[in-house]
Amino acid sequence: MKSINIQQKFSKFNANWHPHQIAIVDDMQVLLAKIKGEFVWHAHQDEDELFQVVKGTLEMHFRDKVEVVNEGEIIVVPKGVEHCPITKDGEEVHVLLFEKLSTAHTGNVIHENTKTDYPKI
Amino acid sequence: MKSINIQQKFSKFNANWHPHQIAIVDDMQVLLAKIKGEFVWHAHQDEDELFQVVKGTLEMHFRDKVEVVNEGEIIVVPKGVEHCPITKDGEEVHVLLFEKLSTAHTGNVIHENTKTDYPKI
Repeated sequence: MKSINIQQKFSKFNANWHPHQIAIVDDMQVLLAKIKGEFVWHAHQDEDELFQVVKGTLEMHFRDKVEVVNEGEIIVVPKGVEHCPITKDGEEVHVLLFEKLSTAHTGNVIHENTKTDYPKI
Repeated sequence: MKSINIQQKFSKFNANWHPHQIAIVDDMQVLLAKIKGEFVWHAHQDEDELFQVVKGTLEMHFRDKVEVVNEGEIIVVPKGVEHCPITKDGEEVHVLLFEKLSTAHTGNVIHENTKTDYPKI
């Protein structure tokens, strides 16, 4: 039952594409991630996934469209929907994620970017 | 699968202490609320509740302490824990909440501020 400062938590890690856990809410978790460039196409068959852009501009690529998510905006990727987060021009974008504790990082695929541990910070 | 602008959503309602729903993530929902003054002491027996302060300063009162939650900070109130959100000096504070779809507004108590509908905006 302590206040959690999001900016302060972002200062605790540097790695791109490696979510860090800052809170748990029931069976879901709040993660922070610094992302840069193109991730990997994947889907989470059983879980929705929320992204909130804290800094920068995220492009969420779907198979049939691209949705631009600006700072102060959120987007929910429904379960089963293939998506690929991308940032442009080498920008490092800071995102907060809400998702199930059970959600696998890259869903249905294994990739060099796949992380299986989300350090608590 | 659309970007949701939090500020724009806040412009769509004015009532204090009346959460409005902007997204669903699995069995949880994202709510926005404009709060001012003192709420009512209550607890949610079965659900945790996350508050993210988007504007202003929230005081989260617990029976044994007060936690100040500033803009850009979050706090998770664990299930079963009595709490009372308060804002000071007549400040209207904007918060984003993340909680179960089943979570009752004022938990175990009924109060004049109790809302049973969260309009979708």
